[in-house]
Formats: sequence, C-alpha cells, structure tokens
Amino acid sequence: MNIITVSREFGSGGRELGKRVADLLGYDYYDSEIISAIAKNSGLDANYVETTLDNHGWQDFPVSFGGTMHSVAYMQASRIDLLVQQKKVIEGIAALGKDCVIIGRNADAILKDLHPFSLFVCADTEAKIKRCRARARADEKLTDRELVRKMKEIDKARARTRDFLTGSKWGQCRSYHLTVNTGDWDMKVLAKAVAQTAQDWFSSKA
Amino acid sequence: MNIITVSREFGSGGRELGKRVADLLGYDYYDSEIISAIAKNSGLDANYVETTLDNHGWQDFPVSFGGTMHSVAYMQASRIDLLVQQKKVIEGIAALGKDCVIIGRNADAILKDLHPFSLFVCADTEAKIKRCRARARADEKLTDRELVRKMKEIDKARARTRDFLTGSKWGQCRSYHLTVNTGDWDMKVLAKAVAQTAQDWFSSKA
Repeated sequence: MNIITVSREFGSGGRELGKRVADLLGYDYYDSEIISAIAKNSGLDANYVETTLDNHGWQDFPVSFGGTMHSVAYMQASRIDLLVQQKKVIEGIAALGKDCVIIGRNADAILKDLHPFSLFVCADTEAKIKRCRARARADEKLTDRELVRKMKEIDKARARTRDFLTGSKWGQCRSYHLTVNTGDWDMKVLAKAVAQTAQDWFSSKA
Repeated sequence: MNIITVSREFGSGGRELGKRVADLLGYDYYDSEIISAIAKNSGLDANYVETTLDNHGWQDFPVSFGGTMHSVAYMQASRIDLLVQQKKVIEGIAALGKDCVIIGRNADAILKDLHPFSLFVCADTEAKIKRCRARARADEKLTDRELVRKMKEIDKARARTRDFLTGSKWGQCRSYHLTVNTGDWDMKVLAKAVAQTAQDWFSSKA
C-alpha cells in the first residue's frame, strides 16, 4: 500500500496538487472526508469539528455553539478528544489497505510506521494571496493585510498542532521527503512531476 | 539554456545529487571550478579564496597566510572583492549559454533573470553525520558533537551570505522551486526524479 501525505501552507494549492496527484495515480483521496467521518462518529457538527481541530481564531469563535455555551477549557478538552478521534479515522483509512493521498492533519506523523511519502507544499505570499482571491466568495471583504494575517494564523495553528503531536517541525524541509513551492509552476506539470517522484520512491522501497 | 542551481546543507549530499543530475541530463557541472577560476583571475591561493568566501571559522583562520599578515578588516574587504569576482565568474558561466548545474554560491539569486531551476538539498542531522563520517579523512578526529557544531557553523555562514547578497532566506522552502531531504532516498533514484522534474519545469517554460 502506497500512502502520500500532503502538508501545506494555507493558500499554497496543496489541496489541488494532492487531488491532481491522486487522480494521476488512481489513488483514493482524503481531505474533508476526515472531518465528515469524525463528525459522524462523534455526533458533532462538522463545522464545529473543523474549527476546534484547526484551533485558529479561537478569540473570534462564538462561545455559544449549537445552543450550548462552551468555555475555552471545554473546547481545549474537546480538541484533544477530537485529535484522538482524528488519529483513529486516519488509522482507519490506512487499515483499508488501499493506495491513497491524505491532505493535512499530520497523517505523515500518525502513519509514520507505514512509511508514507511525505510532501510539503508552500508558496510565496503574493502567489498565495492571488490564489485565495481567485477562490474567495463574492462577499469576501478581507484586505490583503487581513488575508495575510489570516493565512499566518492558520499556518501557526498547523505548526502548533504538529509540534504538540510530533517531534518534527511543520514546514521545515527536513520533516518531509519533498517540498515544493507552487508559485512558479504550472499545477498540472507539477502534479505529474510529484506523482512520478512519489512512484519512483515507492518502487525503490518495494 | 537550462540552468539548475543546487543550494544545500553541509553534509546533505547536495553536491553528489547535483553531479548525478548533471550526468543524467548531459549538462555541464560547476562546483570547485568556480573557486579555481576566482583564484586564477585574482592570483590568490584557492584555499584562501574558499575559506574567505565561506566565512566560517574566521576565529581559527591563520592571520598569516602565504607569508602575509592579514587583519580581520582586511579579510572582510577581501571577502567583498571575492564575492564580486565570484558573481562575475558565475555570470561568465551563464554567458557560455550551455545547459549546466551550478553548486552553491547563490547562483540562483545571481542568475535570477535567467530563470534557473532552483533546488535546495537538506537531510536530518543523523543522516548528515553518517555521510560526513563515510567521506572523512582517516585522520579526522571530530566527535559527533564537534561535527554537528561545524555543520551548523558552515550552514549559518551560507545563510548569512545569502541574506547579505539577496532578499530571500537560505534553506526556506519558499526560496526554491524544489526542496529534497536526501535522508530517506536512494541517491540514484532521487537524482533521476530531480532530473525529470527539472526537465518538466523547463519544458513548461519553453
């Protein structure tokens, strides 16, 4: 079984790249499916699960959610429960024994013993702004400065979670087999190169 | 003309990887040739040129070199002269108009306008120690701790030079098209993947 994990900076196009690689290789693809599974298993709202796991913007998060008042301490406890559930869901995906691409959620660290091929995806700030703008809702009102702040907050939260769960540093090249900067690439060309590189790596380990 | 630049952590195998990629693609390869050219142009000793440019271990560097006493201030001035000469040598290589791989020396930043494919090569500390040990002279007496300190000093000097010469950060994934961690790779397989990836990138830009 070949597993490719994709960690990424917010706005870098890691999700698109991962999906393209999965399609090229005919692998299963897991992204928001992980959140849906946790929500289903726990009976919690998927948005609540995602926001709590992502742990960014807590200060802006409504203390009343689904009609219930939640303290920060409650949310922190809930977050640890959800991280445990997330780990189980990711282990469950691996237990299916099928080749797959898993986006984010520290799957590379969780599935370390199964030797996944780990990819990190980054991009220059300008490229990330452009990408976010192209994908924003029509009512999106963030200035560039606010958008950059949001991107940094999300990335910091991802780094904190990785730090909490694993020994290795988020975004540091030594933590992954391959790191790509999508900024100066045609995404189709890059996906083909990454798919081929991952296949070469799997073949050499077989 | 296709140019591949290879920046690397000390001990990561970036030089070997660059040479293999050059051989696979039939590109010219430049590494110590750059130092030799500067030494030839300036009439200075090649070891002096390399040590001054690399700017690490100044405290251990003999103040008397080639029979002449050099002050730190003199060496600093000399270093700037040598960086200018190095830039000219690298521009001269590019002016030959032939496909090539250039190791280190911030060639990616110097030749930015020619759009080189930029690679950064890193590895885990353990893998780098192993690699250094395998290549060390028989009389090498450094402990692991001393070796790690030396590696860090050299990398810090590389980072400082890049910071001084360019706006982009050494070793940060956003500064390069592709970053590879050699630790968990067979070097031949990795070289093939990198060569193919660079070729795909060049084709997409043509």
